[in-house]
Amino acid sequence: MLRGLLRGRWALPAASLALGAGLGAALATRPRPPGDEAQGLLARLPVVPAVAAAAPPAVPGSGGAELTKYGLPGLAQLRSRESYVLCYDPRSRSALWVIEQLNRGTLSGSSDRAACDFQEDDSVHEYHRATNADYRGSGFDRGHLAAAANHKWSQKAMRDTFYLSNIAPQDPHLNQHAWNNLEKYSRSLAKNNKNVYVCTGPLYLPRMEADGKMYVKYQVIGKNNVAVPTHFFKVLILEKESGEIELRSYVMPNSPVDEKIPLERFLVPIESIERASGLLFVPNILKRTSNLKAITAGTKR
Amino acid sequence: MLRGLLRGRWALPAASLALGAGLGAALATRPRPPGDEAQGLLARLPVVPAVAAAAPPAVPGSGGAELTKYGLPGLAQLRSRESYVLCYDPRSRSALWVIEQLNRGTLSGSSDRAACDFQEDDSVHEYHRATNADYRGSGFDRGHLAAAANHKWSQKAMRDTFYLSNIAPQDPHLNQHAWNNLEKYSRSLAKNNKNVYVCTGPLYLPRMEADGKMYVKYQVIGKNNVAVPTHFFKVLILEKESGEIELRSYVMPNSPVDEKIPLERFLVPIESIERASGLLFVPNILKRTSNLKAITAGTKR
Repeated sequence: MLRGLLRGRWALPAASLALGAGLGAALATRPRPPGDEAQGLLARLPVVPAVAAAAPPAVPGSGGAELTKYGLPGLAQLRSRESYVLCYDPRSRSALWVIEQLNRGTLSGSSDRAACDFQEDDSVHEYHRATNADYRGSGFDRGHLAAAANHKWSQKAMRDTFYLSNIAPQDPHLNQHAWNNLEKYSRSLAKNNKNVYVCTGPLYLPRMEADGKMYVKYQVIGKNNVAVPTHFFKVLILEKESGEIELRSYVMPNSPVDEKIPLERFLVPIESIERASGLLFVPNILKRTSNLKAITAGTKR
Repeated sequence: MLRGLLRGRWALPAASLALGAGLGAALATRPRPPGDEAQGLLARLPVVPAVAAAAPPAVPGSGGAELTKYGLPGLAQLRSRESYVLCYDPRSRSALWVIEQLNRGTLSGSSDRAACDFQEDDSVHEYHRATNADYRGSGFDRGHLAAAANHKWSQKAMRDTFYLSNIAPQDPHLNQHAWNNLEKYSRSLAKNNKNVYVCTGPLYLPRMEADGKMYVKYQVIGKNNVAVPTHFFKVLILEKESGEIELRSYVMPNSPVDEKIPLERFLVPIESIERASGLLFVPNILKRTSNLKAITAGTKR
């Protein structure tokens, strides 16, 4: 049934390689992707811009600074907070992705969820910002991307997860059951490993309609048209005590999911998430280690 | 009819200010938007990353470099080419926006369109790249964002407009008629002004369905699921000989548009494009000048 949900009705791009236990080897030898160099440079830019010169951007080539005289209309909107680093998507009024670091330290503490309120992120331009009013009466929960309970170590860190930039409209049943179980499972892994890096984000997957064509369709809610993802992904990068890196990547539909379905059934090849989300995980990880194992459904552990 | 298309069936966010001839004044005094500071810093980052230190990103705060140890899964993908600066959207397999600079110089020359072929942009990761095969048999044209005929001054500049990153699936009738007229009009303005900065991009506008809810729905084509925009925007920033800056912003639906409708009817308040696209134009322009006049339908000239 789930397989049907993910592969049939919804088209999560199928991995073109046979992935699974052999992924580490396959990835280690696959050719360096084009554009990887620029990607690497971008990834090394400071996340929070340091004080920069007041000059307009230096663009080599014919256009140069002249071409961008009146600015660039949009760029990656990174937010570095106590509990996470987030890349904002101003068009959807939510995040493209959020990364957290979980370990025994971040999970222990006495922070109180009751002391936290969902709040507008006023670091986002008012045109592109979700408000609490957008969610009211929509039928959707304000679903955390970086989970509140992951950050008991600091009241501020927990409070930071309540910015609406870290929130997406989520089916209430999913939020309170299967997705919550996935979050709990992430925390249990963090207790048994050195670190777990968790990256969470929305997906907008195409599906075939009666005319035989593929369409992406998603609801938007509220005055600000906050996008309702069709699915969510969660990528867990486990740093083991042995130094080995293990990757577990999950996708769940943004609809009620029977809790009796084992979480393992929601494992998907990382390549599917990379293709669908427009993001890349594996090339970055391979810059740090070649000791990478990817877990997919059916992987022997 | 057009008004119906843009405002009724499709929900282009309505401007909340009364815009038009009075925009310059209204904008010059409107409060500085929150997040503007960070925006400004980001806008001043080099577009093409200079050689950077090999260290991981320096993220202040608790997580710091440790949190982003395995990289950031995605950032703005800027491309600076002979004829344009482009921000790529890996999820849609096309551009978020493309800026060109047009003037008498760029419009004259003997570059030959027949010597140009549509080509994959291999600076984009293969997972996120459109191919010519994706367009084949789709019923859509490969529609230029930065127009080829804007860059007669250099064969290379013209050829650069044929990268599929500068292309989006466009209704053939629109591409060959009304949109083409808008491109021609941009060039005619470039002949009578010091410079015209042209920013073009896709829109994915929500519309109300029978259930009374708002949905964004768009087709995707080919193996790579190249997104078919519901609309296109074109923002013209006119730099007059007098030093005055004039802004003209257009939206057209990605469907056949009767050529008999005057182009002026497609003028929309810039705020509508800013809200719908997730981009910002006016704050950047106001950093350079306070002498800004925005032209909307009905503006007296």
